Amino acid sequence: MAASPKKILILGGGFAGVYTARSLERLLRADEAEITLVNRENYWVYQPMLPEVISGSIGLTDVVSPIRRLCPRTRLVMREVEAIDLAQRSVTVSPGFRPVATVLTYDYLVIALGNITNFYGMPGMMENAMPFRTLADALAVRNHLIHALEEADCEDDPDLRKKLLTFVVGGGGFSGVEAIAELNDFIREVKGNYQRLRNEEVRCVLVQSGERILPEMAEPLAVFAQKLLRKRGVEIILKDRLRAATSERAILKSGVEIPCKTIISTVPSAAPPVIEGLACKKDKGKLLVDSGLCLEGYADEVWALGDCASIKTAGGNTAPPTAQHATREAATAAANIVAAIRGGSKSVFAFEGLGTLGSLGHGSAVAQIFGLKISGLLAWFLWRSIYLFKLPGMNRKFRVSMDWFIRLLFAPDLAQLRMTGDGNIRNQHFEAGDAIFNQGDLGDSVYVIRAGECEVWRDGKFLAMLGAGEYFGEMAVMSDQSRNATVRAKSALDVLLIPKDDFARLGENLPAFAEVFREMAAKRGAGA
Amino acid sequence: MAASPKKILILGGGFAGVYTARSLERLLRADEAEITLVNRENYWVYQPMLPEVISGSIGLTDVVSPIRRLCPRTRLVMREVEAIDLAQRSVTVSPGFRPVATVLTYDYLVIALGNITNFYGMPGMMENAMPFRTLADALAVRNHLIHALEEADCEDDPDLRKKLLTFVVGGGGFSGVEAIAELNDFIREVKGNYQRLRNEEVRCVLVQSGERILPEMAEPLAVFAQKLLRKRGVEIILKDRLRAATSERAILKSGVEIPCKTIISTVPSAAPPVIEGLACKKDKGKLLVDSGLCLEGYADEVWALGDCASIKTAGGNTAPPTAQHATREAATAAANIVAAIRGGSKSVFAFEGLGTLGSLGHGSAVAQIFGLKISGLLAWFLWRSIYLFKLPGMNRKFRVSMDWFIRLLFAPDLAQLRMTGDGNIRNQHFEAGDAIFNQGDLGDSVYVIRAGECEVWRDGKFLAMLGAGEYFGEMAVMSDQSRNATVRAKSALDVLLIPKDDFARLGENLPAFAEVFREMAAKRGAGA
Repeated sequence: MAASPKKILILGGGFAGVYTARSLERLLRADEAEITLVNRENYWVYQPMLPEVISGSIGLTDVVSPIRRLCPRTRLVMREVEAIDLAQRSVTVSPGFRPVATVLTYDYLVIALGNITNFYGMPGMMENAMPFRTLADALAVRNHLIHALEEADCEDDPDLRKKLLTFVVGGGGFSGVEAIAELNDFIREVKGNYQRLRNEEVRCVLVQSGERILPEMAEPLAVFAQKLLRKRGVEIILKDRLRAATSERAILKSGVEIPCKTIISTVPSAAPPVIEGLACKKDKGKLLVDSGLCLEGYADEVWALGDCASIKTAGGNTAPPTAQHATREAATAAANIVAAIRGGSKSVFAFEGLGTLGSLGHGSAVAQIFGLKISGLLAWFLWRSIYLFKLPGMNRKFRVSMDWFIRLLFAPDLAQLRMTGDGNIRNQHFEAGDAIFNQGDLGDSVYVIRAGECEVWRDGKFLAMLGAGEYFGEMAVMSDQSRNATVRAKSALDVLLIPKDDFARLGENLPAFAEVFREMAAKRGAGA
Repeated sequence: MAASPKKILILGGGFAGVYTARSLERLLRADEAEITLVNRENYWVYQPMLPEVISGSIGLTDVVSPIRRLCPRTRLVMREVEAIDLAQRSVTVSPGFRPVATVLTYDYLVIALGNITNFYGMPGMMENAMPFRTLADALAVRNHLIHALEEADCEDDPDLRKKLLTFVVGGGGFSGVEAIAELNDFIREVKGNYQRLRNEEVRCVLVQSGERILPEMAEPLAVFAQKLLRKRGVEIILKDRLRAATSERAILKSGVEIPCKTIISTVPSAAPPVIEGLACKKDKGKLLVDSGLCLEGYADEVWALGDCASIKTAGGNTAPPTAQHATREAATAAANIVAAIRGGSKSVFAFEGLGTLGSLGHGSAVAQIFGLKISGLLAWFLWRSIYLFKLPGMNRKFRVSMDWFIRLLFAPDLAQLRMTGDGNIRNQHFEAGDAIFNQGDLGDSVYVIRAGECEVWRDGKFLAMLGAGEYFGEMAVMSDQSRNATVRAKSALDVLLIPKDDFARLGENLPAFAEVFREMAAKRGAGA
C-alpha cells in the first residue's frame, strides 16, 4: 500500500466501542489502519449479567472480558478521556504513573463513551445513592448489602435495624427491575444465615416514575412482572420518583420518606462531561448523527454511537440504549470507516430491534421477541440461552454455565470483598536526589514537608531550599497550570501529600486554609 | 441446666479462631454456651490458595468462606477489636454505622488475632511496599500488576517502562516464594497480550535475608526450588533484605537499588497493636501461653493461639505459624474451654507437624512429609490434593476443581477489578431535623458547613446556631473524647466532612490549619 496506515481512534470500551474494534480488525489489514481504543478499564463488561454480581452467583471475572483478548490487534490505552479537539483531530487522555498528559491524534474517530449517572438537582443523592452501571458499582452494591446485614445483626436499636433492612431502588426500567429482583432474592435467601435477622422484616422497594414498570415492554408483560415481584415481597411505588437522599432516608417527590441505609439509583443518566464540551449539534445532550452514524459536519471523519449518540433508525425510530443496537451500530460505523479509507458506498443504520428480554430471577423472566410475548420459566430459559450464547469466549461460556449450575444447588455466597480505599491525603517518602515533580508536569498534589529538605530548581537554576513545615506545589494546583519548577529531595524526605481534589475542597470551604498557602506563595515570590 | 449459658468470646477469624468456634459448636450444647466471634471481615481466608488470586486462576470468592456458614451457631460481629480489658473481662470493638463504641463481655476469651505487617524503621515501605497477607492485599497486588503492564504498554519513556516491568518480592519463606512463583508465571504468560511488551524484558526479583530460600524446609528442596525459579526467570538475591522504598525503587540493606514500581513484602510481621497494649507475659511481642494454651495468670479464662501466641509444643519446639498447627491449637483450646465449663482434665498441645508443602506453580512444588522429601510434579499433585481436601464445603471444592481445570486449558484472566476508594475528605448532605451527631457519640469527623444552618444542643439546651463557613465537631476529635453536644440540621445542610485521620494529619503538618480550629473553638467557648 502506498500511504502509511490510517489512525483510527475509538473512545469507549462498551458494546459499541469494542464491537467497532472487532469489526475493524476483521475488515482491515494491519497495513491499512492502526486501531487504538481508550477505556478507563482494561475489560469490557457484559452488562446483561451485571445484576448477578449482587448475589455473587456469577464469578466476578466472568461478567467481564479483557479487551486485549477481544481485540488483539487493537492498541488499548487504559486511561480516561479528558478532552476531544475535533478541529485539531486530537484527544487528550488522563495521566498515568507520570503526571503528564498524553495526546492522541487520529484520522478517524469513533465516540462511544456511553453515559454517566447524573444526580444534578437531587440534593444528597451524589453522597448517598449508589449508582448501578459499572462492575465496580455492582460490587460496591453487593458489599454494601452484606455490610447492612452484618450491622443489622449486631445492632440493638430497632429503628436503625429497620433502616438497615430497607433497600430502595430508583428506576423501574430493565436495569432497576433486574437489580431489585436479584437484590430481593439475595437478601431473603441469605438472611437465614443471620441468627437475629431470621424473623425480621425486610423491605425491598422499587420506585418508578411511570404508570407501570418496564416501559420498554408491552403492558401485559409489565403487569406480569409487577405481580411476580410483589408476590416475592417487593414493594412497588409507581408515579413517584427519588427527589433527595440523606444517609438515613430516601425522599420521594410526593413527599413520602423511606427510612433506609441503602439507595440504589438506575436513573438518571447524562452525557459524559467531555461530550458536553463539544461544539456540535446535539439532541438532549447526545451527539446528533446522520443515518451513517457520522457526526454532523464531520462526514467520513467522526462517528458517534452507543448511549452517547442520538440515533434514528432508517424507519425513523430512536435507537434505544441496548446491547443489540450498540453492536449493530458498531457494524455500521466500522463499514463506513472502511468505506472512508478504501472508498465505496456507505452503509445506513437500519436495525429495528429483535425484541426485549428482562430477567426476574429465580426461574422467571419476561420476553418480547418477534412479536411474541413470553413470561415465566420459558422466558427465563430463553434469557439464559440467548445471553450465554452471546457471551464471547468458550472459557467464559463454560464458567458461567458452571456458576449457574452451582447456584441451582447451593445458597448464594455471602463473603464481603471489601476493598480498602486508596487513601486521599497520605504520606509519601523520597530519598535524596529524587524528583518530587518536574517542571512541566501537571500539578496534581500539594506537599507539606514533614521531615527532610528539598531543593527548588527552574530552568536549571537553583531557586530555594525548603525544610520541615514548609509547603510546595500549591501554585500549579491553585492556578490549574503545569509545574513551573522542579523539586528534588536534598535528603531523605517525608511529605504529606494533599491531592488536588482534597486541596481544592479544603480551600473552598476553609478560607483560612487557602489563605495560609496564598501568604506562603506571596512570601516566596515564586512558588513551585 | 442450672446456670445461664457461659459467654465465650473469640477474637479473630483465621484458622485458629474459626476452628475453635467449630470445635466448640460440636462439643457444647446451646444452653451451655453462647459463642461470639469478632472479625473485621465476614469471611475466613483459605491462606494456602491466596497466591492464586494473583493470576486469577481461582475465583475470588472461592478462596474465602463466609464465617456464618462455617460456624452457624456462632454469633459473628464484623468489627475491629479496639481494646481488651482482661481485668474487667470485656472487649471494645470499633463502631459500625453509628459512631458508638460497642463493649462485649465474656466468661471465656480466645485471642487469635494473628499478626500484622510492620514496616517500622523501614523508611518509605509503608507508603510504597504492598503487604501480602489478606484477600484485599492479594487483589490489590493483582490490580497493581495489571496496572503496571497497562501503563508500560502505553509508556514511551524506556526508563519508566523498565521500572514498570520490574517486580520485587521481599521474603523468601513460603509466602514470598509462592507469591513470586505465581507472579512470575502470570506476568510472563499475559505479556503476550500487550503488543508493545512482547519483546520487552521482565524482571521478577526475590530478596531473601538468609543463605537460601524456604528456611522452613530441608536444604535439597530449597535448592530445587531456587534452581526451578531461576530457570523460569526469577532473580534470587540472597543474604540481603529490603531496607527502604520510594515510589521509584527498592533499596536493599547492601546498598543495591532496584528501580521498580512494584514492591511486595511478605515480611516482617508484628503483633497487632491491641495485643501490644496487654499487660501480660510476652515472648518477642507474642502472648506467652502454657501447655494448655492458657495465658499466664488467666488460667481457665483466657487462651491465646495462632500467630499472635508464643506456643511451645510438648516436645519443647516452638509451634510455627502454619494452618496445620493453628487448627490443632484450636482443638486443644476448645477442649480446655469445655473442661473449664464442665470440669474434667485438661488437654496439652502436643502436635509436632505433619510436614510442609510449598507450591512453585506450573506443575511443580516441594513437599516434606513424614520424613520424605518430594519435589516436582508429584509434590505439586500432593499439594493440590491435600489443600483441596482440606478446603471446607463441597461447593468450594467443586468450584476450585473447575477453576483449576479451566486454568489448564486457558490463559489467565487479565481483567483489572479496580475498586474506587472510599474517598476520605468528602461532602455530605443532611435535611432539616437530621442529627449530624449526638452528644456522647465518638468524635470521628470534623465538619465545615458549605450551605445551610445547624443547631448545637447540650443536655436539652439550645447553645448556638451555625451557618455557612463555620466549623464544628473539632473538639471531640482534637481531644479524643466523645461529642459534648448534639448538632442538628436546621435546614437542608451541605457539609465538608474531614475524617479524624485526615484532620489529624493536616493539623500535625500544617500548624496554621490547627490554629484556625483552635481560635474558633476558643471564640465559641464551648465547641461541639
